[in-house]
Amino acid sequence: MAVNLREKDAAELLGVDGVQVFVGQAGVKKAARDDLTLMVLNKDNTVGAVFTQNRFCAAPVYLAKEHLFDEDGVRALVINTGNANAGTGAEGRARAMAVCEAVAAQVGCKPTQILPFSTGVILEPLPHDRIIDALPKVRPVHWHEAARAIMTTDTVPKAASREGKIGNNHTVRATGISKGAGMICPNMATMLGFIVCDAKVSQPILQLLTQEVADMSFNSITVDGDTSTNDSFVIVATGKNGQNEIDNIADPRYEQLKALLGSLALELAQAIVRDGEGATKLITVQVENAESSEEARKVAYAVAHSPLVKTAFFAGDPNLGRLLAAIGYSGVPLDADKVKMWLGDVLVAENGGRADSYTEEQGQRVMNESEITVRVDLQRGRARAVIYTCDLSHEYVSINADYRS
Amino acid sequence: MAVNLREKDAAELLGVDGVQVFVGQAGVKKAARDDLTLMVLNKDNTVGAVFTQNRFCAAPVYLAKEHLFDEDGVRALVINTGNANAGTGAEGRARAMAVCEAVAAQVGCKPTQILPFSTGVILEPLPHDRIIDALPKVRPVHWHEAARAIMTTDTVPKAASREGKIGNNHTVRATGISKGAGMICPNMATMLGFIVCDAKVSQPILQLLTQEVADMSFNSITVDGDTSTNDSFVIVATGKNGQNEIDNIADPRYEQLKALLGSLALELAQAIVRDGEGATKLITVQVENAESSEEARKVAYAVAHSPLVKTAFFAGDPNLGRLLAAIGYSGVPLDADKVKMWLGDVLVAENGGRADSYTEEQGQRVMNESEITVRVDLQRGRARAVIYTCDLSHEYVSINADYRS
Repeated sequence: MAVNLREKDAAELLGVDGVQVFVGQAGVKKAARDDLTLMVLNKDNTVGAVFTQNRFCAAPVYLAKEHLFDEDGVRALVINTGNANAGTGAEGRARAMAVCEAVAAQVGCKPTQILPFSTGVILEPLPHDRIIDALPKVRPVHWHEAARAIMTTDTVPKAASREGKIGNNHTVRATGISKGAGMICPNMATMLGFIVCDAKVSQPILQLLTQEVADMSFNSITVDGDTSTNDSFVIVATGKNGQNEIDNIADPRYEQLKALLGSLALELAQAIVRDGEGATKLITVQVENAESSEEARKVAYAVAHSPLVKTAFFAGDPNLGRLLAAIGYSGVPLDADKVKMWLGDVLVAENGGRADSYTEEQGQRVMNESEITVRVDLQRGRARAVIYTCDLSHEYVSINADYRS
Repeated sequence: MAVNLREKDAAELLGVDGVQVFVGQAGVKKAARDDLTLMVLNKDNTVGAVFTQNRFCAAPVYLAKEHLFDEDGVRALVINTGNANAGTGAEGRARAMAVCEAVAAQVGCKPTQILPFSTGVILEPLPHDRIIDALPKVRPVHWHEAARAIMTTDTVPKAASREGKIGNNHTVRATGISKGAGMICPNMATMLGFIVCDAKVSQPILQLLTQEVADMSFNSITVDGDTSTNDSFVIVATGKNGQNEIDNIADPRYEQLKALLGSLALELAQAIVRDGEGATKLITVQVENAESSEEARKVAYAVAHSPLVKTAFFAGDPNLGRLLAAIGYSGVPLDADKVKMWLGDVLVAENGGRADSYTEEQGQRVMNESEITVRVDLQRGRARAVIYTCDLSHEYVSINADYRS
């Protein structure tokens, strides 16, 4: 049961000029399901992307990183589910390249203008022939079908749109889809995020924007602390909205666009946490007044990764001890007597222990909610961080213990 | 069900000259159970100790750190279960001191010669009056009863002894007890370890020895990655075996004693993992040929902390993808193509993917065992690390979700 997450109607998702989206059935792992997605881009787009830091990164990630900087620009993204093409060595890269060649022939460009993405079982050879055979048979679809086609262990398709003014009376439209249910499941639940918009942005500026947007969204979520071999996040800017190019960050439209795409990416990233394996609650961990944002993230992740904190949220138990202990072992040289902590709007800890005003009833009221914010004030500086996670339930163990059978 | 762990008979545990051990019933949390342990030491002993790094360390930890260096030496250790006296501020320290005062009056020494230890619920005031009232009524016991009296969520008492020759025909006897079932449970399952031996060691050398022994035992285990507000490990050397003092590390007896106490501490530490909350398997993660031991520990902990790896062990699933992904995201700049990995004696991965010789049947055979070693060769240097952990089961979630109810 995902936490407050429902599938979007076709009507809630905006088409974006310059991008055509197709899905097909390659039978990579199972027959008769959409497991192949193709996004064909106009010629004058730009693309920014960020990829997994995992040293065992997958074959398509190697290729996508290289093709991103092709001098003639990216012309298509191809995504398959059912097989991650990871831990497959040189042969895996050759197979991913064969898929790029087939897409290139179909689209009419060079293979190095194709970005490939794969998600599914790892350490198994990619059945590239089946993907190549399926490519000519893909059908044009709207975004809600693409959101469904990139799902693996997801229980709800993840898609969202934004429309807003940027600059002088120009409108930007953006639509995105994402997938993922554990931060990793080398077998299947890689995190992928794709956003397309019709703004016009130079590639270096779009690359920076993509990194900044990722940091405020996909890089701020965690289900189980694991990161996958295939995680990728891409922003395409088709430049079709009629504005002149945003080519420096001093352009006021840069921040406007970042806010619009950041909000969209955060919705897509939070959807992954809401659909986290076994999740029953969405937890926001907000750390304030740290010396640096790195320090703030350290404390937030210590809380968000603690199995004891996560099981307490599952149980609906306002277990302040577990929360304070996680803050205490984060590795930040904090002064325990200065730390303040709130559960929702309730001050629960200060002066090194439970707040005098706190009552168990107040804590229990907050813990009964399905979306809970833990706020921590370190009183050390001015930096902050926000991390989103979910609780740890019986269902998480079931999903991950039984997964391959 | 603890993994291959049984309670020791009284006859399996050696008395150690210079230490008298007592237990009593203070009714800290529950009536009519032994929840108070007192170890009274001879006058010429030395004591080494290491404590939790958690910034929210408990009141008794503050005091024990200070009293450890009293110029007249430590004369007693007092341990209560049922209440951790953590997150209790200045009042908590005053109550811990009141307990030290009562013990000192009974033993005949200064309050600053007493080391206090507490484990149990945190953020609750310590009922120090009940402890003080119970002190005169403690009864002398053998070590198996002390091991039982310091238990909280433990399902099996943890105790062991060693006897061995060091130096010229002198014998050292050592007995230890430990408790803990999650690396943390701020509510109850703090990790405590106590070893007493009859060797004669100067305090600075014993402090160093304690740190070294902790690193090869209690600092190399993890159940859920959390560390508690109260974790402590103590070695007492009574000097009663008739040898002259070990006062420098060049003395060959230093390494002999370290080996003997290290083996004892490792048994006590492994007992905690074997009794890990919901544990069904003991997992040894051995990382070899790293550039530094810090790097080796980073990789070993990434594997040992991954919820996906731990659920795969619970399921008995030889899920190489999860293992390789955890190694890959450890943050060590390794070359994925050079990493080799074994499950038990089976080579499972090399050249960036599954080993050609590997079969699922071989992996399954190893995964069916109750004690499993994962060996990782990074081919980057000469350093190594070994970390012990357990699997992540339904039972873990049940224990920690239901704990306070």
